[in-house]
Amino acid sequence: MSDRYRVESDSLGTRRIPEDAYWGVHTARALENFTVTGDSIGKYPALITALAAVKQAACRANRELGVLDARRADAIERACAEIRAGALHDQFPIDPIQGGAGTSTNMNANEVIANRALELLGHARGDYAELDPLDHVNLGQSTNDVYPTSVNLAVVQHVRGLVAALGRLADAFEAKSAEFAGIIKMGRTQLQDAVPMTLGQEFATFAVMVREDRLRLEEGIALLCESNLGGTAIGTGINGHPGYSALACAHLTELTGERVTPAENLIEATQDAGAFVQMSGILKRVAVKLSKTCNDLRLMSSGPSTGFGEIRLPAMQAGSSIMPGKVNPVVPELMNQIAFEAIGNDMTVTMAAEAGQLQLNAFEPIIAYSLLKTTAHLSAGADALATKCVPGITADAEHLRAGVYRSVGIVTALTPHLGYAASAAIAKQAMATGRPVAEVVADLGLLSPDQVAELLAPQRLAGIS
Amino acid sequence: MSDRYRVESDSLGTRRIPEDAYWGVHTARALENFTVTGDSIGKYPALITALAAVKQAACRANRELGVLDARRADAIERACAEIRAGALHDQFPIDPIQGGAGTSTNMNANEVIANRALELLGHARGDYAELDPLDHVNLGQSTNDVYPTSVNLAVVQHVRGLVAALGRLADAFEAKSAEFAGIIKMGRTQLQDAVPMTLGQEFATFAVMVREDRLRLEEGIALLCESNLGGTAIGTGINGHPGYSALACAHLTELTGERVTPAENLIEATQDAGAFVQMSGILKRVAVKLSKTCNDLRLMSSGPSTGFGEIRLPAMQAGSSIMPGKVNPVVPELMNQIAFEAIGNDMTVTMAAEAGQLQLNAFEPIIAYSLLKTTAHLSAGADALATKCVPGITADAEHLRAGVYRSVGIVTALTPHLGYAASAAIAKQAMATGRPVAEVVADLGLLSPDQVAELLAPQRLAGIS
Amino acid sequence: MSDRYRVESDSLGTRRIPEDAYWGVHTARALENFTVTGDSIGKYPALITALAAVKQAACRANRELGVLDARRADAIERACAEIRAGALHDQFPIDPIQGGAGTSTNMNANEVIANRALELLGHARGDYAELDPLDHVNLGQSTNDVYPTSVNLAVVQHVRGLVAALGRLADAFEAKSAEFAGIIKMGRTQLQDAVPMTLGQEFATFAVMVREDRLRLEEGIALLCESNLGGTAIGTGINGHPGYSALACAHLTELTGERVTPAENLIEATQDAGAFVQMSGILKRVAVKLSKTCNDLRLMSSGPSTGFGEIRLPAMQAGSSIMPGKVNPVVPELMNQIAFEAIGNDMTVTMAAEAGQLQLNAFEPIIAYSLLKTTAHLSAGADALATKCVPGITADAEHLRAGVYRSVGIVTALTPHLGYAASAAIAKQAMATGRPVAEVVADLGLLSPDQVAELLAPQRLAGIS
Amino acid sequence: MSDRYRVESDSLGTRRIPEDAYWGVHTARALENFTVTGDSIGKYPALITALAAVKQAACRANRELGVLDARRADAIERACAEIRAGALHDQFPIDPIQGGAGTSTNMNANEVIANRALELLGHARGDYAELDPLDHVNLGQSTNDVYPTSVNLAVVQHVRGLVAALGRLADAFEAKSAEFAGIIKMGRTQLQDAVPMTLGQEFATFAVMVREDRLRLEEGIALLCESNLGGTAIGTGINGHPGYSALACAHLTELTGERVTPAENLIEATQDAGAFVQMSGILKRVAVKLSKTCNDLRLMSSGPSTGFGEIRLPAMQAGSSIMPGKVNPVVPELMNQIAFEAIGNDMTVTMAAEAGQLQLNAFEPIIAYSLLKTTAHLSAGADALATKCVPGITADAEHLRAGVYRSVGIVTALTPHLGYAASAAIAKQAMATGRPVAEVVADLGLLSPDQVAELLAPQRLAGIS
Repeated sequence: MSDRYRVESDSLGTRRIPEDAYWGVHTARALENFTVTGDSIGKYPALITALAAVKQAACRANRELGVLDARRADAIERACAEIRAGALHDQFPIDPIQGGAGTSTNMNANEVIANRALELLGHARGDYAELDPLDHVNLGQSTNDVYPTSVNLAVVQHVRGLVAALGRLADAFEAKSAEFAGIIKMGRTQLQDAVPMTLGQEFATFAVMVREDRLRLEEGIALLCESNLGGTAIGTGINGHPGYSALACAHLTELTGERVTPAENLIEATQDAGAFVQMSGILKRVAVKLSKTCNDLRLMSSGPSTGFGEIRLPAMQAGSSIMPGKVNPVVPELMNQIAFEAIGNDMTVTMAAEAGQLQLNAFEPIIAYSLLKTTAHLSAGADALATKCVPGITADAEHLRAGVYRSVGIVTALTPHLGYAASAAIAKQAMATGRPVAEVVADLGLLSPDQVAELLAPQRLAGIS
Repeated sequence: MSDRYRVESDSLGTRRIPEDAYWGVHTARALENFTVTGDSIGKYPALITALAAVKQAACRANRELGVLDARRADAIERACAEIRAGALHDQFPIDPIQGGAGTSTNMNANEVIANRALELLGHARGDYAELDPLDHVNLGQSTNDVYPTSVNLAVVQHVRGLVAALGRLADAFEAKSAEFAGIIKMGRTQLQDAVPMTLGQEFATFAVMVREDRLRLEEGIALLCESNLGGTAIGTGINGHPGYSALACAHLTELTGERVTPAENLIEATQDAGAFVQMSGILKRVAVKLSKTCNDLRLMSSGPSTGFGEIRLPAMQAGSSIMPGKVNPVVPELMNQIAFEAIGNDMTVTMAAEAGQLQLNAFEPIIAYSLLKTTAHLSAGADALATKCVPGITADAEHLRAGVYRSVGIVTALTPHLGYAASAAIAKQAMATGRPVAEVVADLGLLSPDQVAELLAPQRLAGIS
Repeated sequence: MSDRYRVESDSLGTRRIPEDAYWGVHTARALENFTVTGDSIGKYPALITALAAVKQAACRANRELGVLDARRADAIERACAEIRAGALHDQFPIDPIQGGAGTSTNMNANEVIANRALELLGHARGDYAELDPLDHVNLGQSTNDVYPTSVNLAVVQHVRGLVAALGRLADAFEAKSAEFAGIIKMGRTQLQDAVPMTLGQEFATFAVMVREDRLRLEEGIALLCESNLGGTAIGTGINGHPGYSALACAHLTELTGERVTPAENLIEATQDAGAFVQMSGILKRVAVKLSKTCNDLRLMSSGPSTGFGEIRLPAMQAGSSIMPGKVNPVVPELMNQIAFEAIGNDMTVTMAAEAGQLQLNAFEPIIAYSLLKTTAHLSAGADALATKCVPGITADAEHLRAGVYRSVGIVTALTPHLGYAASAAIAKQAMATGRPVAEVVADLGLLSPDQVAELLAPQRLAGIS
Repeated sequence: MSDRYRVESDSLGTRRIPEDAYWGVHTARALENFTVTGDSIGKYPALITALAAVKQAACRANRELGVLDARRADAIERACAEIRAGALHDQFPIDPIQGGAGTSTNMNANEVIANRALELLGHARGDYAELDPLDHVNLGQSTNDVYPTSVNLAVVQHVRGLVAALGRLADAFEAKSAEFAGIIKMGRTQLQDAVPMTLGQEFATFAVMVREDRLRLEEGIALLCESNLGGTAIGTGINGHPGYSALACAHLTELTGERVTPAENLIEATQDAGAFVQMSGILKRVAVKLSKTCNDLRLMSSGPSTGFGEIRLPAMQAGSSIMPGKVNPVVPELMNQIAFEAIGNDMTVTMAAEAGQLQLNAFEPIIAYSLLKTTAHLSAGADALATKCVPGITADAEHLRAGVYRSVGIVTALTPHLGYAASAAIAKQAMATGRPVAEVVADLGLLSPDQVAELLAPQRLAGIS
């Protein structure tokens, strides 16, 4: 930053602004007031580009409605387009945790766009008589419609990224499912030997779980694509133009590729954080399932000697500073922790949503911050699994097979032929003597060896023949 | 209970069962093992009838598949039908919080149905050689497909009740919205005077929020209507008949009126608690919104002298043991607390879902218990609001109107004509002098009195003209 | 209930009260207004006896201060003593989830005590001109000091029960620790073989965890023994007698055996729910640890064939309706679910505490309900573990020992002699060849067989020699 | 970073390390494996200095035990001291959310210290034959004792900062309490007018709440000062020296100024995350109270025209992009959001703690990250309140006073003289007619004007005379 300053003023007084800053007095106040995380909103490109898209859509609508002249509109549009293309994100230095219901973020956008537009028009930064952050860039808008709409779109963009990452993860699981299709193993319920299945079936399950979540996320996206643009301060549309809402949403749809529609009731849409709670709940569901899947991977790879020892995860780093040769399931552990964070973030979103009062939820900044982190981190975790863990998993097929025939659990397959009580007796005897179920049955002469062999054939046990 | 007993046995030994009990040895074990809440599963008719419906559907499928004879099938069906009609619920004494992944609940159902069927066939209770709880009632089934399907349907029934209750609540809000359509008041953002609206608009918002939640709940119901029947122990369908799954779901659809469909992947469906997490998240959303609405009602009725004093809630009981004449917002407070409980229950569901391992989630009993409580309590709260609070709300129209014109917030309506900076200066002056904005503007000669009157007309301020 | 009624009135009108009811009009209103859980406060004897103790202490204080005559005071005291001894709890039918900040509960107590006292004085129930629920039983009190103090003491009583149950559980773990002292096994970190320990050390750890929690709970009790009695409505002590607070606390101490002291700042104490949040946090800690312990027990007993197979839990019931011979860890699963509920309840308590406004927290009823359930259920779970699970645990000592010497993890014991890099190479070779570490080291001639034997002696490995 | 590299190797292979990096191959692996947050552990100086202190204490202990030579020990100590003084924190680039239970963080510290020590000894970075990150820097240690101890101490340092910030906030509230001592106002329960108090009493309450939390935090610090140093891998102390634990803790005490003591049972201490759960619960309590306090400030400052209008918060920034003159309670809103985040983080900590298995909790990295953020953010919020909000609060004394005498709530003060029922009737009449209670009483001739004046004197009403 240079040592030179310009002076800007607001209703509270004046502030010296670094000459080369595109932001202005309102941003300066926010920088003084909010110093919590060390993060800045500029760290989240999805949020900055969404803000710029909303401002650009509003500008187009205003121009068409005849309330903004072409010269200013052109300049504003060009500034917005530049930001959407990745420029000037370092001019959004405000802390993501901020009071004021997003006002500072909106003001920051207004100021950066105004000053860049002024520059494009050949004027100095701060020459707001020519083009004003509020009277022109923010025309027909309010923080209370701009900010939620921008947050919605930023979250949608992150969720789209997560959907893609989950797709890659599902692919990875499916590839393993095919590879492991022929490997019979013991299924378990309540951590106790249950009945057989194939390892391929098990990995297919992981894939199905992930794929289902993609559908749920897309349902959540639809809710987030409702916008309250045009509602202005509280949704009544004060100072707004009647045609503005539809126009702005249409332009926003064109600019973002998302099907943005005006909410049916703008007053409700302005105060309701329900779409965030819904999306957060879905993200929690994703987190729960990914965590459960990683718990399973960690269990199945436990050992190598004194655990389940069913699969081996690829070694990604030395596992211990004291135990040579130890290799840990670091990628699933990473995912577990991301899931725990996502679940905590859902609680934060819940509390913030519940705390909304009357015509506005003042706590959307923490909702936005939480959802952007959850989505980004879940995506990172899913990609780590898909690239650094799942593809390198190997199975100990013989160990798995042996487990099936050593287990008394396979007696279940004989129950339809022997009845529950007789089978339970066989199980008891097998367990007491340590002999395989097949032998016990044969000895008791309850079934012929051929019958036993047929009933206990791997394919039949796993229900795939 | 009588003093007479019959003796039943299982693989662990024997237990004396009260002669007049329809339940048997497995239920007896559960009664010994689980003594936590003082509640019983029989307290939740939706769960008991769902269990009976599943057993009846399975029975029909088994008969059609030729694996169950008509005589036994008839008796089992009749017993199930009686339970669905409300009989024998007191024969389900097991604690809702139970280990064993619902095995005890399934066993309880098997035993009650078997003994009632035996009775219908003219046999004594416990005469299982004739008709066995496991070999006949549980035929082709496993706790791991019966129990989740039953819990799903029980929750669906509760959610349908909640949808209905929310409908009644939305109606109540809409009636008030119509009644209050002509009352202008100050809208608020961040608890600060913002811009005007009507009280009717505010109550319409409450109605819209509630109505939207009904749609979300119905989406969640669809997920819960997927069943893993036929998957048996772990979803591989071991010991099951290939045609069973489709048949059982078809009968279940007929019996319950819900569109029950077989899950695409039974292994996944058997271990996945995702539909519960999704529904719990939606219920949390409902709770968050109802709590926010009640916070608003409490705020708006704060006072009567030193609060907002906008509306008055009907007095339901004396408000204090020490302060005569005090009346409290007890119904909204009730709803707030139900919401807090629902949010806590969602955390319980989340943890239980995440803790599922491998081929089963062993913690579905606490998931079921939590969801049944949340849905029932939210319904009770919504009905309390709809019948004991909302209809009796009255408004202080003159107080509300006066507030609008006393507030500096209405300067916003002049901004398009005067610009942001000039309007801010007027606001500052009005605040400093305590004079109405209209007067300040007139004095400054910025607008004519007619212009001011037009710009500040109530209808226009509220955006409804 | 009889068909006969008396008529009682309050400021809102009249209600018919069943003639044999000890409760009156205020309770009748609450019964109409709050119909959520199907539970009643009378289900929680600790709460009812705490209420009676507070009323009795207040009565004694009032008599000594000369504001209550001896005849009425005697009758009130006797009624309270009876309730404390277990009588009349069925006269507390109000739903635990209630609006009104506990006013209904306090009113219920006032009415039952008044009517029982009237009876003792030879008067009819409802003859309040003689002895009034408010003017005499509630004298010098407010719901806002009586109710929190009563809830505090009820929770304290439940926590004392939990401390005792945890003591029994710690004893059970310690007995097993002694029994298993000589059994060497592989310790695990991140589910991977780490270094050896004894099974006795592992069970000692469980005991230590439980014992530490007892200390934390007792610290929490101290906070709950601060009372705001004498603060009346908002803590300013309006209508109270200056000497009342100290006197009432002294009597309450005598009656309950808990060291009840007046809070330093009664206004703060009246609105602050901090002691509840603190206790709830400690209870969550207890839940977290018990859940982790049960996760370990379930892991260690996984199998029997294809799991860890280290220990076996006592069989408490048949484990499956389809898999004969299966036995499940139902008691640890019970405890896990109780823990999940406790963690959810903590969230409910947190939200309710945060929602307190200005001079009172109106949501103490749900806080009370949540804490009473959490404490009772955790106690039940701990007792189930202590009596139905831990004492019957058996270990497979040979399987455990073999695991140690089969594992490459023991190479860690050689690291100080060989260096980290050489040890890692040995580990790698052992893993690749499947040969024991001891053999690989011997072959390489890095250490003499005697050295190896000494370094890998069980006692030395476990750090207990 | 330079373009030049050195090559380092671990058991998995080799990695090229930037020549000027102090970190090595293990850190390089972690940088590849963990790319989630964009944050680095080096952003948390408290964690880096705690790691360096632990390493220095270990080094001193090792030297005294005769297992580390003076030359290497000197170099290691100097390197640690430099880091503790703030140097080289940019050499800790690893993501705070990481798999491996903190192994990467410990390895990072070992490598940076080793390479700086090598430099001090005149050797090249990477010349580990001379001084090895594992064999010398990590001597006698394991991630599993180093990492938890370091996290403990880092959290303790943050908590000390929070205690200080809360002290400043309590001072600010107390100053206001003194300033507002003479201002009478209406107290409220359940948002309804209750009985009078002074504004000074209200602000004193805020101070008391904050002060009490300082005590709770200090209790939590004591638990965190127990260390498992010397336990090495799983607490059995394998490869450790018997005297090490006490020595290391003594040196750590000297280096940090915190009273670090060895845990009684090192196995338990190694796997138990209880102290984190406890501290997190206390932090949640702090968050709950600060949030409640900010809710109160926002309520009391609601308006200015159509709200409570009791106090005015200092204006920190323009409140709206559309409503000129609007000023929002941005600092309390900031604190609310920080509190919601802290409560969410507590849930994350809870889940991570519960997920610990057997001899280690693998999820301490997310626990550490959550606690460091919560403590830092709560401190920032408290300081924002203490410096940018509380000192500038002004009160509208006349408005507050008028509210008291306009309210029917003051009838409570007459109840001891008139009885509850008569007072309720007066209240009803006052409410119906809109006349002050004092007038109604006078008219009814129930008390003389002098009596009324005395009973309703401000000091008496507020209980301070």
